[in-house]
Amino acid sequence: MSNAGDGTIGVGMVGHAFMGRVHSHAWRTVHHFFDVPQAPRLAVLGGRDLERTKAAAAKLGWEDFETDWRALIARDDVQIVDICTPGDSHKDIAIAALEAGKHVLCEKPLANTVEEAREMAEAAAAASARGQRSMVAFNYRRVPALAVARRMIADGKLGKIRHVRAQYLQDWLSDPDAPMAWRLRKQEAGSGALGDIGAHIIDASQFVLGEHLAGVSALTETFVHKRPIAGDPDGRLDDVTVDDTALFIGKFASGTMASYEATRFALGRKNSMRLEVNGEKGSLAFDFESMNELSYYDGGSPDETAGFRRILITEASHPYAGAWWPPGHIIGYEHTFTHEVFDFLTHIGDGTDPAPSFADGLQVQQVLGAVEASAGNESRWTAVP
Amino acid sequence: MSNAGDGTIGVGMVGHAFMGRVHSHAWRTVHHFFDVPQAPRLAVLGGRDLERTKAAAAKLGWEDFETDWRALIARDDVQIVDICTPGDSHKDIAIAALEAGKHVLCEKPLANTVEEAREMAEAAAAASARGQRSMVAFNYRRVPALAVARRMIADGKLGKIRHVRAQYLQDWLSDPDAPMAWRLRKQEAGSGALGDIGAHIIDASQFVLGEHLAGVSALTETFVHKRPIAGDPDGRLDDVTVDDTALFIGKFASGTMASYEATRFALGRKNSMRLEVNGEKGSLAFDFESMNELSYYDGGSPDETAGFRRILITEASHPYAGAWWPPGHIIGYEHTFTHEVFDFLTHIGDGTDPAPSFADGLQVQQVLGAVEASAGNESRWTAVP
Amino acid sequence: MSNAGDGTIGVGMVGHAFMGRVHSHAWRTVHHFFDVPQAPRLAVLGGRDLERTKAAAAKLGWEDFETDWRALIARDDVQIVDICTPGDSHKDIAIAALEAGKHVLCEKPLANTVEEAREMAEAAAAASARGQRSMVAFNYRRVPALAVARRMIADGKLGKIRHVRAQYLQDWLSDPDAPMAWRLRKQEAGSGALGDIGAHIIDASQFVLGEHLAGVSALTETFVHKRPIAGDPDGRLDDVTVDDTALFIGKFASGTMASYEATRFALGRKNSMRLEVNGEKGSLAFDFESMNELSYYDGGSPDETAGFRRILITEASHPYAGAWWPPGHIIGYEHTFTHEVFDFLTHIGDGTDPAPSFADGLQVQQVLGAVEASAGNESRWTAVP
Amino acid sequence: MSNAGDGTIGVGMVGHAFMGRVHSHAWRTVHHFFDVPQAPRLAVLGGRDLERTKAAAAKLGWEDFETDWRALIARDDVQIVDICTPGDSHKDIAIAALEAGKHVLCEKPLANTVEEAREMAEAAAAASARGQRSMVAFNYRRVPALAVARRMIADGKLGKIRHVRAQYLQDWLSDPDAPMAWRLRKQEAGSGALGDIGAHIIDASQFVLGEHLAGVSALTETFVHKRPIAGDPDGRLDDVTVDDTALFIGKFASGTMASYEATRFALGRKNSMRLEVNGEKGSLAFDFESMNELSYYDGGSPDETAGFRRILITEASHPYAGAWWPPGHIIGYEHTFTHEVFDFLTHIGDGTDPAPSFADGLQVQQVLGAVEASAGNESRWTAVP
Repeated sequence: MSNAGDGTIGVGMVGHAFMGRVHSHAWRTVHHFFDVPQAPRLAVLGGRDLERTKAAAAKLGWEDFETDWRALIARDDVQIVDICTPGDSHKDIAIAALEAGKHVLCEKPLANTVEEAREMAEAAAAASARGQRSMVAFNYRRVPALAVARRMIADGKLGKIRHVRAQYLQDWLSDPDAPMAWRLRKQEAGSGALGDIGAHIIDASQFVLGEHLAGVSALTETFVHKRPIAGDPDGRLDDVTVDDTALFIGKFASGTMASYEATRFALGRKNSMRLEVNGEKGSLAFDFESMNELSYYDGGSPDETAGFRRILITEASHPYAGAWWPPGHIIGYEHTFTHEVFDFLTHIGDGTDPAPSFADGLQVQQVLGAVEASAGNESRWTAVP
Repeated sequence: MSNAGDGTIGVGMVGHAFMGRVHSHAWRTVHHFFDVPQAPRLAVLGGRDLERTKAAAAKLGWEDFETDWRALIARDDVQIVDICTPGDSHKDIAIAALEAGKHVLCEKPLANTVEEAREMAEAAAAASARGQRSMVAFNYRRVPALAVARRMIADGKLGKIRHVRAQYLQDWLSDPDAPMAWRLRKQEAGSGALGDIGAHIIDASQFVLGEHLAGVSALTETFVHKRPIAGDPDGRLDDVTVDDTALFIGKFASGTMASYEATRFALGRKNSMRLEVNGEKGSLAFDFESMNELSYYDGGSPDETAGFRRILITEASHPYAGAWWPPGHIIGYEHTFTHEVFDFLTHIGDGTDPAPSFADGLQVQQVLGAVEASAGNESRWTAVP
Repeated sequence: MSNAGDGTIGVGMVGHAFMGRVHSHAWRTVHHFFDVPQAPRLAVLGGRDLERTKAAAAKLGWEDFETDWRALIARDDVQIVDICTPGDSHKDIAIAALEAGKHVLCEKPLANTVEEAREMAEAAAAASARGQRSMVAFNYRRVPALAVARRMIADGKLGKIRHVRAQYLQDWLSDPDAPMAWRLRKQEAGSGALGDIGAHIIDASQFVLGEHLAGVSALTETFVHKRPIAGDPDGRLDDVTVDDTALFIGKFASGTMASYEATRFALGRKNSMRLEVNGEKGSLAFDFESMNELSYYDGGSPDETAGFRRILITEASHPYAGAWWPPGHIIGYEHTFTHEVFDFLTHIGDGTDPAPSFADGLQVQQVLGAVEASAGNESRWTAVP
Repeated sequence: MSNAGDGTIGVGMVGHAFMGRVHSHAWRTVHHFFDVPQAPRLAVLGGRDLERTKAAAAKLGWEDFETDWRALIARDDVQIVDICTPGDSHKDIAIAALEAGKHVLCEKPLANTVEEAREMAEAAAAASARGQRSMVAFNYRRVPALAVARRMIADGKLGKIRHVRAQYLQDWLSDPDAPMAWRLRKQEAGSGALGDIGAHIIDASQFVLGEHLAGVSALTETFVHKRPIAGDPDGRLDDVTVDDTALFIGKFASGTMASYEATRFALGRKNSMRLEVNGEKGSLAFDFESMNELSYYDGGSPDETAGFRRILITEASHPYAGAWWPPGHIIGYEHTFTHEVFDFLTHIGDGTDPAPSFADGLQVQQVLGAVEASAGNESRWTAVP
């Protein structure tokens, strides 16, 4: 596969809803702030509906569009396929793209089932041997504060880790009259809060700690079983077929105790993805609603001056942050995606595999599977394979 | 039983360590700020060691002392017995005091086992019929902010409750070289973090919600199995025989989903007893380290101005707060005990039973029992009787 | 002057309103938590109205009462005179007490005018030579967090100080219909927000920095000129004759730049006494509404982990804090007064002069005077003598 | 003047340092998120050094470049001139561009002196009559939280305003060895902290209140008079000829009392642009380090539940916010510039004058002038013309 030749690399993106909008911004922006081997070219946008896809391509800055993702994959001006569709189509698109020799960036969770994820991970491993790169879009790894957290833990600044508590709290379903959406149908979304936002805290906590969950005990619940179909003139209701919340407790292989909660019913918490880590030498706390901040307790400080400090993660010494603005000038949600495509382009240029790989995506899927298995079996302890 | 006749009521308190110091302050102070039917008289302090008890009585303001709690109970100038000893002696002292016709205030957890607690609750019920009052010292119910929280929920301001998350985080055992203590011996303490601080968040969450946990799934862990004996010249170690942390998830009868964590290994969290509640109409958040504040999200606010508000719980309209200082002049930890004895004295005066009763203490003990049972049985779902 | 002989020292307190209530608590409580040379005995309470004084003495725990402060001073069982009256009576009471050989604790501001304060300081200096101790009750010096701040600055942890910003924000006059009070009459109160709460931030900032203001430029304003007389059946209004707010900027002798604001019209700020200090090596921030916390930025931390840390000032290593509860168990407003009388009793025992002395009180009065002079002279720069 | 004809409007930008980088991002991004009458075309970048300008044009996405701003203004493909240079060149570029029939966006402060600003305002007024639009880039007006603040005050939600306190605190000059920069030379920058960041809080506070300062009393100070020349092999020092800090107090025409502080020596405060407003009915507080949040106290709430609420300004109902992401997904510093060019393009399309106009810029310059005059005249009260 050859690149565009003009120093750019062609991107074909499937899907133009929320994730498509933010990925488009990242592809448009990355090379103006970061040094990348090849600047991305927004070659082709893929969607199902011709008029809506055409309009989205114009608004989001894509040169061309296709209404059949197979046609998009087949195009010579596409070297990277970026998958921004619901989970039920990830496997087919990703495997076809990999078979067509493309690099693949795929939104999370990797798939709707462990089995699908396993097939995708196998295809990605085979493609890697052919020089193609694959990555799952767990964008929270690219929040500078969480990248700092990982670095501090890897450097031993926290010592042995005792506790992790991870929560992803939103409230957009708190109102029982909030309308039905694809994210509430098992067929399309795989699961509910668990896969949508629970997957993020599973990945982020394992990323920050640098190790994997050994097992879990779980409860899931659906609070609202029927929701109105948006715009339906007869006011009909549709069935919610996924969990509204997932709570689980678990252990890491090293003995770290962990608790997780994912919900979209935490009224007042808009996008509160929180992570706390307590180690023998230090502790960290993070909340995505204040994503430019990391709270750090240094156990080595004398008692008199010890305390959680609010580090503003906007220093040139912080990962990614130096590419943006002077200290104290914060960045936002979409920057995490810009960082993500920066890393992806860098690995494509280097010929090395980026993380999180599809194998990492499979592992998260296995945790999701263990949570569902435990919740379906009297919350019994369930090992993660 | 007659009272002192001079308008006071005599108190005999057993134990003069941490809890004894703070209870003494409450008995000395309550009538100077609150209107009570009878002012307490600090009649007798009970302790095991003569010299230490005598010194404590002098320092803490007690008129007399006894080194045998049975003698203390027997005294005519004692109408109230206040039990501030480790859990293994609660049952014997409380039942003896009740049989002797005294009112009894007992530190938490009520006992070390469900069976002990049941005997105590039965004795208290029988004594109540004879006009004696009993209460468990779950002092967090008397934090004004939590009393406000309960009132708001009871008044329906939060609507149907979806989620509770409760954490009690301390760090005084985080250092593996911290010395052995009675709280780390099962024989004396019953359990570890679970009974010491987990009991508080179980009681406080049930109090605030006004309902009981239906069942739990739990994990417990002991991180440090041996600890140095303080002052031992040979540097010997003693066995820690209790949990260092307890994590559990559960459901309330009404369907509210709950998660709990108790630990004394959360480095940097000194006394972070946190409670969050999400309802369909509103949410609350509390942290005891900022005990004069309650965070409240009113779901009825228009989007444009909705947000968690920090209510400073120092207004005259807040429970207990009007007895102290003008708004913005905060109170501290010991005030919760002063409120507790105020309520206790009021109920003694009224001839009505105060809460939390020994029956309430038994119910908390049953939750503690269910947590231990689940943790010992592959985290399987365990109903609370 | 001899002490009571029974190991106690007799206190006579004049005034039983807000300050009298909190001073009483301090005198009742101090020896139960701190080691003092002599425990205080609440001998005599002074007030003007017989019935109200008698009731207050009973409620607040005083043995006896007097309705003439001269009689109170004359009593043999009074060794300490504690002045809790409005400012217009401070001079007469204090000088009479000093002349009668008593130790004197006087509420702030020391007086209503510089001239009165000067007379008092002279009387205190003369009495000191006779072995009598005097102190002004600037209780904020005894907030543990501010005592830590002073120690850190004295130890050089902040380096050369560049900036101080001090604000005392309350809101109890924000409502223009809030009733008239003695604090709003120049005759009794001397000044308004300036002397009532501005005096606190002047003293606290100078205490923390360890140096004095060299000069100021000021603005004062009265927002509401007439207020209803509480309970007046005819709804009459009375004239507010003091400032509602005072703003001033100034310099310390060393070149530190400072800004001050005192107001009782900052709606929502209940008792927000804030102090921020920026030095070349570190910064501090404090807010009395969270009085157990001190925020500290250590400029020596590497960029990657530098940040304002929230120090919970409840460690045994913090001034006063070790006498109370374990870490994380906070204290409240009245504790600052308990600390104050502890220090006063200690100095009486030691035979050394406590701070803030009446001379310190005079110096604060001179700053207040300079603020009023500048505000009355087109805000022109006015040196503090 | 005709537009590009292809539905775009050509931009020529002078300057490619910090402000040039962020303006470039805004021009590249605005039409992908907002509906603008004409999408901007990044036609020409102006700079002084050929190689650096060429490289910047490539990096920042400009089609062409010029090394003479007069040539840039003269080009037919430039309809908008965007001035991102130091203050000493603003007047010449802006007036030339206006005379050449271009729309002009000019960085703040508008000029280095009141006289320059007046000439520019006159030129802009004349150009407005010819259909050209001019705007000063006070980007903080486009922080959604401050736009909400202005709307709430204009709607009367705060009632009569009593107090404003505005601070702009940075720390990049706190180290006396930080190198010399153009912002420290009066010739280029006009003034120091005063014009650089003080101008922002003057403009933002007047914008939010909807009225102007009537007069001020001021202090300025230079802490470090000589600084090293970056990269100078001989370690030579250069003279700092501007203020390091400016403090002033003032009144608005309506009687609102105000205090201001601008400094780059507040160690630990990275970009803390704070604004607090207290009104008779409500209060607001803002800190740019948490720019997605607005703190609001509703005086109409009952005492029991009143408190400052943290509004996350990410709702669709908030100005600008709906164009970005779902609630809780925050935005960053550069978005304020994207909002700014959105408003500018909208006004160009509508044929109406945007705010802040050059006349508004002149008024801010007059406040800066009054501050300097007062500081040079014993801090005496100085009216703003």
